[in-house]
Amino acid sequence: MSENQKIYVVGHKNPDTDSICSAISYAELKRRIDGDAYIAKRAGNVNEETQFVLDYFGVEAPAFLAEVAEAEKVILVDHNETSQAVDGLEKAEIMEVIDHHKIGNIETPVPIYFRNQPVGCTATIVYQMYKENAQEVTKEIAGLLCSAIISDTLMFRSPTCTPVDKETAMKLSEIAGISDIEAYAMEMFKAGSNLADKTPEEIFFQDFKKFEVNGVTFGVGQISSMATEELFEIADRLKPYMTTAREEQGVDMIFFMLTSILDESTNLIFTGEKAGELVEKAYQVSCQEGDYYKLEGVVSRKKQLIPSFMGVLQ
Amino acid sequence: MSENQKIYVVGHKNPDTDSICSAISYAELKRRIDGDAYIAKRAGNVNEETQFVLDYFGVEAPAFLAEVAEAEKVILVDHNETSQAVDGLEKAEIMEVIDHHKIGNIETPVPIYFRNQPVGCTATIVYQMYKENAQEVTKEIAGLLCSAIISDTLMFRSPTCTPVDKETAMKLSEIAGISDIEAYAMEMFKAGSNLADKTPEEIFFQDFKKFEVNGVTFGVGQISSMATEELFEIADRLKPYMTTAREEQGVDMIFFMLTSILDESTNLIFTGEKAGELVEKAYQVSCQEGDYYKLEGVVSRKKQLIPSFMGVLQ
Repeated sequence: MSENQKIYVVGHKNPDTDSICSAISYAELKRRIDGDAYIAKRAGNVNEETQFVLDYFGVEAPAFLAEVAEAEKVILVDHNETSQAVDGLEKAEIMEVIDHHKIGNIETPVPIYFRNQPVGCTATIVYQMYKENAQEVTKEIAGLLCSAIISDTLMFRSPTCTPVDKETAMKLSEIAGISDIEAYAMEMFKAGSNLADKTPEEIFFQDFKKFEVNGVTFGVGQISSMATEELFEIADRLKPYMTTAREEQGVDMIFFMLTSILDESTNLIFTGEKAGELVEKAYQVSCQEGDYYKLEGVVSRKKQLIPSFMGVLQ
Repeated sequence: MSENQKIYVVGHKNPDTDSICSAISYAELKRRIDGDAYIAKRAGNVNEETQFVLDYFGVEAPAFLAEVAEAEKVILVDHNETSQAVDGLEKAEIMEVIDHHKIGNIETPVPIYFRNQPVGCTATIVYQMYKENAQEVTKEIAGLLCSAIISDTLMFRSPTCTPVDKETAMKLSEIAGISDIEAYAMEMFKAGSNLADKTPEEIFFQDFKKFEVNGVTFGVGQISSMATEELFEIADRLKPYMTTAREEQGVDMIFFMLTSILDESTNLIFTGEKAGELVEKAYQVSCQEGDYYKLEGVVSRKKQLIPSFMGVLQ
């Protein structure tokens, strides 16, 4: 880079492990191949799962980016929807997008590098880019990328997981010195679902995304757990907060997915006038006692819930 | 592919040489690596420059695709704006996007492969994908891809041209057996600006694209020529047609770029209430006698004109 201007590499708001670890790893790659302008940032708090990963590999969390200012430069990783991006994005210059989600509503005035691949995790793509650029993946970077893949694919159980994700995670686990990947995953997920001393609000925003389809706005939060019975307790704690969240977020409907990794199913709680109708149209299910929907086989917001909702709303 | 359903690989409407040649070449690559479902199509007439290229390398033009039907599958090359795409796109399933333009307004319900690179030509990216997949580039494919790069970069003179485009074109010219690339380019451009027996409408739609920014709609056509004096004749023939074109296209403004490749400048004719104001704000120029704007150094719609207009309209 001939200029001194910094370029922020940043994931989505309410960042998950992929958004944090891919930002760190991609900023490192860009610094190596294109100079020191690139700085990883985070668009929200580091959740407990991610903090476990950072501590495990001795890596500092990126600094918080509350808002991007006029003409600041950003690279978006792990998202390509303005509703999920750091505040002020409309004033910023988007330099690149590296993602694995549905194509959203980012528009740019000039051609940019936009790389979206239908794989389970942004970290899988970032690993490919290290290889394409013949750059060494250090033990720390391997640990972060491997953890992101485990997290996004629910240890290869999610339907979003592709053979490439699994193969990449296995290679990375070796470089990272993770001798038992299943045991590491359990520890990591357990750190992430350690919710006892959290407020409903903290649990709610640990992993929450907003969407807009044909003028209808909705938000979907998710928590995944290895302990199925725990999910009912979390639901009870979240329910009173749902209406407040809907008002504060200014959306028509709010859903929260309580996903059991072992059962491969989701209990869905909801609020908003037409929220129940939407779920019933999308899944032909009836509301359970306790005001939730049980969605058998549904574990992925991205690959299952959102496409089903889009199908109904479009 | 396990299914029998065809997947159409198609460029933008009013296809240029890149849209035709990249569709043919990418469909061929996809057939080799993923089975015979992939078929190149064109979303409009083959222009004379492109026909020259196809004849030169003995390749058939793709069949015309007037409209895509419900649930048909498409791969978009050389565009990612719905306003430039084949009719019916909103009903189709977009499988992939391979492009080199600004990021437009394509949205998908599920994650897809979306590869946009800030290079001068889609053909440059398609060549990279042949290499990444270790596939041989035949003489014919090399000829088509090389011609597309020459066309899109105005034989490396356009500011959209990157070192990668030039290097790729030089490699391809060898494989294609083009011994004198400058001479070949002259012949090709000459075939393309052979406008004597064309109606204004035919000239107009040879390379025309529509855009929308903040509710303002406009169309921009372009013709590039080696013969600067010819451009004034073309302008005289096009001017009476501009108002009709604006009404038929249902846009607020129409611009037509008459670009001199050798002078590296554009004479811009226009119609629509606020068209002149837009140009003057974007370029701080005054209208010339004969009702056109002279834009020195401007040769690229994509990299120069559109970003300047977007800057004013946003």
